[in-house]
Amino acid sequence: MDAQPLYRRWADHYLRAIKAGSLSQGDRMPSVRGLMRLHGVSLSTAIQVCRQLESEGWLEARPRTGYFVRQPRRLPIAPVDEPNVSALPDPAQYVGIHARVSTFIAKGRQYPITTNLAAARGAPELYPEEKLKNAALRILRRDSRLLVRAPSHSGSTAFRTVLAMRAVSIGLAIGPEDVLVTHGATEALNLALRAVAQPGDTIAVESPTFYGLLQILESLSLRALEIPTSPQTGISIEALELAVQTYDNIKAVVVVPHLQNPLGSIMPDAHKMRLAQLCEERGIPLIEDDTYGDLAESKIPLTAIKAWDRSGNVIYCASLHKVLAPGMRLGWMTAGRLQARVEMLKFAQTRQNEEWSQITAAEFMGLSAYDRHLRRLRSLLRTQRERTAEAIATYFPPGVRLSRPEGGVTLWIELPNKLSSEKLFDAALQEGILIAPGSMFSNSNRFEHFCRINCGLPYSKDLDHALLRLGQTVAQCLRT
Amino acid sequence: MDAQPLYRRWADHYLRAIKAGSLSQGDRMPSVRGLMRLHGVSLSTAIQVCRQLESEGWLEARPRTGYFVRQPRRLPIAPVDEPNVSALPDPAQYVGIHARVSTFIAKGRQYPITTNLAAARGAPELYPEEKLKNAALRILRRDSRLLVRAPSHSGSTAFRTVLAMRAVSIGLAIGPEDVLVTHGATEALNLALRAVAQPGDTIAVESPTFYGLLQILESLSLRALEIPTSPQTGISIEALELAVQTYDNIKAVVVVPHLQNPLGSIMPDAHKMRLAQLCEERGIPLIEDDTYGDLAESKIPLTAIKAWDRSGNVIYCASLHKVLAPGMRLGWMTAGRLQARVEMLKFAQTRQNEEWSQITAAEFMGLSAYDRHLRRLRSLLRTQRERTAEAIATYFPPGVRLSRPEGGVTLWIELPNKLSSEKLFDAALQEGILIAPGSMFSNSNRFEHFCRINCGLPYSKDLDHALLRLGQTVAQCLRT
Ligand SMILES: Cc1ncc(COP(=O)(O)O)c(C=O)c1O
Ligand SMILES: Cc1ncc(COP(=O)(O)O)c(C=O)c1O
Repeated sequence: MDAQPLYRRWADHYLRAIKAGSLSQGDRMPSVRGLMRLHGVSLSTAIQVCRQLESEGWLEARPRTGYFVRQPRRLPIAPVDEPNVSALPDPAQYVGIHARVSTFIAKGRQYPITTNLAAARGAPELYPEEKLKNAALRILRRDSRLLVRAPSHSGSTAFRTVLAMRAVSIGLAIGPEDVLVTHGATEALNLALRAVAQPGDTIAVESPTFYGLLQILESLSLRALEIPTSPQTGISIEALELAVQTYDNIKAVVVVPHLQNPLGSIMPDAHKMRLAQLCEERGIPLIEDDTYGDLAESKIPLTAIKAWDRSGNVIYCASLHKVLAPGMRLGWMTAGRLQARVEMLKFAQTRQNEEWSQITAAEFMGLSAYDRHLRRLRSLLRTQRERTAEAIATYFPPGVRLSRPEGGVTLWIELPNKLSSEKLFDAALQEGILIAPGSMFSNSNRFEHFCRINCGLPYSKDLDHALLRLGQTVAQCLRT
Repeated sequence: MDAQPLYRRWADHYLRAIKAGSLSQGDRMPSVRGLMRLHGVSLSTAIQVCRQLESEGWLEARPRTGYFVRQPRRLPIAPVDEPNVSALPDPAQYVGIHARVSTFIAKGRQYPITTNLAAARGAPELYPEEKLKNAALRILRRDSRLLVRAPSHSGSTAFRTVLAMRAVSIGLAIGPEDVLVTHGATEALNLALRAVAQPGDTIAVESPTFYGLLQILESLSLRALEIPTSPQTGISIEALELAVQTYDNIKAVVVVPHLQNPLGSIMPDAHKMRLAQLCEERGIPLIEDDTYGDLAESKIPLTAIKAWDRSGNVIYCASLHKVLAPGMRLGWMTAGRLQARVEMLKFAQTRQNEEWSQITAAEFMGLSAYDRHLRRLRSLLRTQRERTAEAIATYFPPGVRLSRPEGGVTLWIELPNKLSSEKLFDAALQEGILIAPGSMFSNSNRFEHFCRINCGLPYSKDLDHALLRLGQTVAQCLRT
């Protein structure tokens, strides 16, 4: 006789079905009456099967409709490691990140991609399309002259005013005239770096860091000095201190204080303050890239490092591309004592931004609808991140480790057994899945067994299945 | 007794009034009956007064309404000089054009400007506001998703397709995939220069040249080697040949073949061919800035230098900012063998352009309305240029010289007696008039007694009066 109680046997039966994917996320369990009929069990056994699977996190009850398959929220999965901060950072290396990134992109184009997990941005349906459209229509009807007159210098006043007003909540006391509108944070970072550094100079960056930043550095002939960075608290201030003592040609420090890309870390205020002080003392301009601040799950808005800036040493850069509208390329910056210089460089680089997107954004951002949108966006992204994390914990072989960022659109994954993420990249392509391998995020080879996964897509059966196949692909790569 | 016939005396009376500005362009002359009454002259004398002034070009008759003041079309005014091409060009100088231009701009902001003659672009009413608006509304209603999805790499396909198709008429055989959309010609020039040169390198440019180009060079730490340029035929090929033989660090040549800014010259096809060949033989990339091609008054579209490019050595840059819509910052480039490199740099510099302006432009440019718009624009600009030239010939002291470009939005003026245009700039500011002094267009001091005047504003009494005051200001500056 089987020692297991009856309900457990049937619960296991359904568990296998879930793990094998024949019952997948969102699928409905047979009803209690259905279970009684199908397996010839009693009412109480049928109920116990469902309750047991629910308590283990495999099912969820929906009032008046029954039980549905879900993944457990808190599966045991280890967080990614803290870096070793006592070792001296590698001297800057110029290793052709452009070529590397291009290779990945070119490869990606050769295959029919059905699931793009390489981006770091929400799907279109996460953004307020209808409201933005209405704002845009209103503006065109009201002031179509903006199509044929030269745009205002440094940006539209309406837009700069909204940005300056909103910046109060992150601790910045600035006026519209302190805001320079740019083509995304990308242009802001370009201008900031060009304002402070000459070709050949060294820039301290987080490690790992956003590959776009490494591309910018490379394209400006700047050298990246990678500073160890914690998945929890961001750049290591100790390691940075060591670095500035050792290298005397560091011309700027670039950090993403909130939801660092790819780690997802958030710098504690105490770190921000120390960082601002350290840079000021050393006379090293600090470039703060706050692209993701509005996606952080925090009761109150996170304070910018620039709030601790007393001498105009911090260049603050931000973007609406990921929080308001991926179809608009709106970014902005406020550069302290370098404001005039970045304005000049902006003028020489691309002239003023067009006005219509700026005014459309200003129109929408002036409404309470904008804050409602941000709350909704954060909540959708949380669900998507959690479900993706659960899928990874469930479908990936043991040994996988995961970041657990408090907000944002991506997860950072450490692959088991130091599996090469480039190998995984190639194998996943065959499955129509695009991932961002760790080697895109550093000029070193420290992150080759990591990858970044986008959580911007609404969770669906297809996505779940893709993550299952990705997990299976990891397993396969480990075997071969 | 006065030897002059009576009609001549009264004609001179009115001529003085016109020259003094008390009767100005567009003003109505007293009617024939009015003249009879006012001056007690006969009908035939009154008629002769008007006919005489008309034959001298001071008045024009409008059917059934009478005589109005106009300026003569063909006043004797000397064209600006040809450059000395046998002298070796100055070695490149880095002289702070940014600072110089900023000084002018800052000064301009301190005064209430009523007439801005410093720009190089048409007034809003010269552009198809209504049609663009309707295209934009249509597109937003049809595909508002473009607001919230990431834009396509290198530009929208619809827009790139229209551009590639239209490029056929200027001799370019390219497909949509060869087109990279940029933020105006300004970004295209940045990318082209960054693709071919490193800081410290030397770039051969026309002299005088568009100050924006000098700013770009300075901001990229490139050195400008100024090549003598003819107001008629553009850059001197002989002088360029001499320069490339003498200096071995010239990494690119930048030219504006059509309606060069500020001279207004148009390169003959034979020169274009020789230039393309010379650059190819010497292995020096040629950057062609065709911002103004569509404004040239020519029966058939002017052929791009790139039409003679056999090895992908020419980087062609263009813009819609001045021809279609000053409110849109749309430019594009096709870079031959450097296409992949400029695409990479564009991605690192500003990512993709937003789609909505691209698609709006594509929608309008696909219609025959676009060619109608261009014809209308050219004709309006011709009138404005001619009337401005006439005003200058009339109101400025003798010795002034003028470019007579066959198209475009600006005139290039040589001031009498080597009058400093910076002195004139300061004096004109007091009159609320902004001009572009010659020293903005060169790192040398060869053009200090030149200035550029915008003809983009519809000719009006106010504008005429401003030009009169500007002429008087020149006279004043000459006296003091
Ligand atoms: C940290 C960080 N900064 C900047 C950017 C680029 O921002 P934008 O799209 O506004 O140019 C990104 C995009 O991935 C990012 O992750
Ligand atoms: C010769 C030339 N090239 C480029 C530009 C800048 O073009 P865009 O406004 O498209 O950036 C100008 C503007 O004055 C110009 O005169």
